[in-house]
Amino acid sequence: MSEQVSRWDVFEFSIKGPAGGNPYLDVNFAATFSLGNRDVTVPGFYDGDGVYKVRFCPDTEGEWRFVTTSTDKALAGLSGQLSVGPAKSGVHGPVRVRNQFHFAHADGKPYLPFGTTCYAWTHQTVELQEQTFKTLADGPFNKIRMGVFPKDYIYNTNEPLFDVYEKRADGSHDLDRPNFECFRHFETQIGRLMDMGVEADIILFHPYDRWGYCTMTEEQDFRYLRYIVARIAAYRNVWWSLANEYDFLLDTKPMERWDRFFQIIEEGDPLRHPKSIHNGDVDKNYDHRKPWVDHVCIQNWDVKKTLDWRAAYGKPVVNDEPEYEGNIPKEWGNIDGHELVHRYWLTLCRGGYIGHGETFLDANDELWWAKGGVLHGEAPARIAFLRNIFEEDAVNGLTPMLERGTTYKRVSAVQDGDVRYIYFGEHQPVEWALGLPEKDGDWEIDLIDVWNMTVTPLEKGPLPKVHPQRITGGSHITNQFAAAFGLKLPGRPYLAVRIRPRKTH
Amino acid sequence: MSEQVSRWDVFEFSIKGPAGGNPYLDVNFAATFSLGNRDVTVPGFYDGDGVYKVRFCPDTEGEWRFVTTSTDKALAGLSGQLSVGPAKSGVHGPVRVRNQFHFAHADGKPYLPFGTTCYAWTHQTVELQEQTFKTLADGPFNKIRMGVFPKDYIYNTNEPLFDVYEKRADGSHDLDRPNFECFRHFETQIGRLMDMGVEADIILFHPYDRWGYCTMTEEQDFRYLRYIVARIAAYRNVWWSLANEYDFLLDTKPMERWDRFFQIIEEGDPLRHPKSIHNGDVDKNYDHRKPWVDHVCIQNWDVKKTLDWRAAYGKPVVNDEPEYEGNIPKEWGNIDGHELVHRYWLTLCRGGYIGHGETFLDANDELWWAKGGVLHGEAPARIAFLRNIFEEDAVNGLTPMLERGTTYKRVSAVQDGDVRYIYFGEHQPVEWALGLPEKDGDWEIDLIDVWNMTVTPLEKGPLPKVHPQRITGGSHITNQFAAAFGLKLPGRPYLAVRIRPRKTH
Repeated sequence: MSEQVSRWDVFEFSIKGPAGGNPYLDVNFAATFSLGNRDVTVPGFYDGDGVYKVRFCPDTEGEWRFVTTSTDKALAGLSGQLSVGPAKSGVHGPVRVRNQFHFAHADGKPYLPFGTTCYAWTHQTVELQEQTFKTLADGPFNKIRMGVFPKDYIYNTNEPLFDVYEKRADGSHDLDRPNFECFRHFETQIGRLMDMGVEADIILFHPYDRWGYCTMTEEQDFRYLRYIVARIAAYRNVWWSLANEYDFLLDTKPMERWDRFFQIIEEGDPLRHPKSIHNGDVDKNYDHRKPWVDHVCIQNWDVKKTLDWRAAYGKPVVNDEPEYEGNIPKEWGNIDGHELVHRYWLTLCRGGYIGHGETFLDANDELWWAKGGVLHGEAPARIAFLRNIFEEDAVNGLTPMLERGTTYKRVSAVQDGDVRYIYFGEHQPVEWALGLPEKDGDWEIDLIDVWNMTVTPLEKGPLPKVHPQRITGGSHITNQFAAAFGLKLPGRPYLAVRIRPRKTH
Repeated sequence: MSEQVSRWDVFEFSIKGPAGGNPYLDVNFAATFSLGNRDVTVPGFYDGDGVYKVRFCPDTEGEWRFVTTSTDKALAGLSGQLSVGPAKSGVHGPVRVRNQFHFAHADGKPYLPFGTTCYAWTHQTVELQEQTFKTLADGPFNKIRMGVFPKDYIYNTNEPLFDVYEKRADGSHDLDRPNFECFRHFETQIGRLMDMGVEADIILFHPYDRWGYCTMTEEQDFRYLRYIVARIAAYRNVWWSLANEYDFLLDTKPMERWDRFFQIIEEGDPLRHPKSIHNGDVDKNYDHRKPWVDHVCIQNWDVKKTLDWRAAYGKPVVNDEPEYEGNIPKEWGNIDGHELVHRYWLTLCRGGYIGHGETFLDANDELWWAKGGVLHGEAPARIAFLRNIFEEDAVNGLTPMLERGTTYKRVSAVQDGDVRYIYFGEHQPVEWALGLPEKDGDWEIDLIDVWNMTVTPLEKGPLPKVHPQRITGGSHITNQFAAAFGLKLPGRPYLAVRIRPRKTH
């Protein structure tokens, strides 16, 4: 009998097997899924109490069959079938890189990441986790950065809801014995995010630790990684973030180990979820040109450099942590909402993507950035506004505009086909022409107030006064406006202009 | 008979000589000034109508004598005496680099450059130049960037008050025949600035030209440079800026010529006025490590990099052009006053200096940045406020503060001895401790609102909540507050804190 599964949902095969010894260390279990002559081999995992599982996300409709392999005879050669039907409504498949600098779902729908960060939210009380879901449901975010491990840090001194590994009598953790309940809870939450349409950007390692995860042996690291990949790679909303701040872990996990981590993930992940790695110090970016890196994760406040990162790495740039809206006494956790929104527009209008985090002091130490809960800031409403604008016309992704052969470095300008966005930020010209269309036409031009969230039609105007080009020497050309028309602007900062062909209704 | 001169004033010796041919090309003239066994040789110059002059700024009180040398027999061997008395009240002598990253007058008085930019103001109408003097007298600026040559550019299409070189019948200029009236006028204005206590940052070359200055031969360039140095080096307020945007001139003036320019200036300038060179493109800084560069001139909006420029060049950093307050359709000329003031605080609180310029559209094309006249912006009042604050406690200059062995990169913090300034900028913590004194004491602590120009006393408070340091692995130390106390802050951006020992009155 064939089990019915929807395309891009999780199929799980579960079987009882040996429970003695330490199956986490000792038993290999996998399955090969086949459709016609196509084979996809997927690692399985031990889930405690003698239960072995393998999970598979079918990317193609049809009649699939599978057969298991194992070091344990009783687990080998088991087989079954699944009948994969169309994707459920609203399901677009896993996200992958498209058009070099951008992302799309497997079905072609553009995906613009608007992520947030709640490092240890799955380790908080059940009530707080429910509140986090509620906040996410009401908010503008379609991705969340979240760690497998709990966090030991300022405002993060509580014990996790579940130990990740079994606790010994002396209180230490046996890093060779996972607490399966913890992992099951973790993937339940990933599944709920998936159902909400939220990507789960899974942080596999981080340095804020009192349980011993930072000092696991190489063997323990590799085994952990294979295990978590086997457990969750079938969730279509998973992304792999190898670390939060890998460079703060280089003394216990040398660079070659990080490289190998990437490879191990690829070995166990047939969907090839997006993989990246997040720096701590702004001068310590991983070499994102390495072939196993899918997109660039950056922690950097200097978002005008987005152009440089695109040029340096040639991959999508996601600035996860351009500093957080908040008011805590940590130097990275207290910019005001206005500045964060400014950094959003700067980044998007330079062809990159940017993430959110929030750190307002809280009497119960419930800061969104680590624990989830509720949001207090002024930025999220503006992020929702911005997301709507950029999703409305997204086709191939935003490409930085060129002027005199060089990208915009002061003001920000991007285009996706005939749709252009110019973000002026701290600039407040009363006349403008750079980056406007070179040919006249039936353009719809809107002035966008990024803070007050208004969109106001603008009329075409005359070109600004231009000095005739008559340099007698020197190479510096007084730049001409190649535009067909100019704009009159209100002369205040934090405005953007959108130019697009007028839609005929 | 000995002429009476005050220390650091201009002594001028003038003599009639041959007027035939082209003395600008043909006659060398110089004088050696002596005090005891010390000799200082100073180049002279031809001033038209057979008049030869040599100017000298005596740096030492005493009975000086001089004797001339020349390729013309009638001008050689002339001698005289000058009796140099104390400097006039308020005269502190020429500015030079002190303490590696800072400036001081020759008498030791700290000099903090608060410059502005009026590229071609001496080439405008006499009325407009008088207005510029009036504006400078009322404003916060103690340095002005100004070109020898007029400017041909957007909003700068008018003819100069005086041709710099003699005009031929066909309208072209004879670049081997200076218009002496133009140079006399230029140095009159330098002298008036000197009397006002304003340093004249003289821009020797620039690319915005319709008269032929950009395409002078190497020989013409060198002769021009020797000539202007001979004319104005005795003015104690002169600084040498080799170019505005030298990199836009590299096709006609190759790099070796710029190097040689520096050397030629040194040859003719016994006072050794500060020398630097200003880039156009942000990626085209001159190599300011070259030994003839005294201080770093920078055009760059990304002022948080001030720390990087200090580290790269090891010299004082003056960011002449962090973009201008204004509203014109040029991408470098339209930031709002708030942003410019923010950049001032960022720069000063990272151990650098920063300059002003203003470009508001004007019906008569009278933009301060090029022509002088009047100011319209909101920044100058805040620059005056900031200048008062930093001059009040200036001793050795501001040094970036260290935390965990690294300079501040997000918030900005500097100290000069026991006086500390922390600028939060876009950050809005409600509690703070980083960078505060490690020992308690009788500190005077003030909250500075950089835009509203208020200074409000702050009380010491408890240290912020700190997570105990108990990292089990990894190298990342949860940074502890080494401070003796914390501060409660209002939780809004664009504030600074000053901490200094309480003065006993």
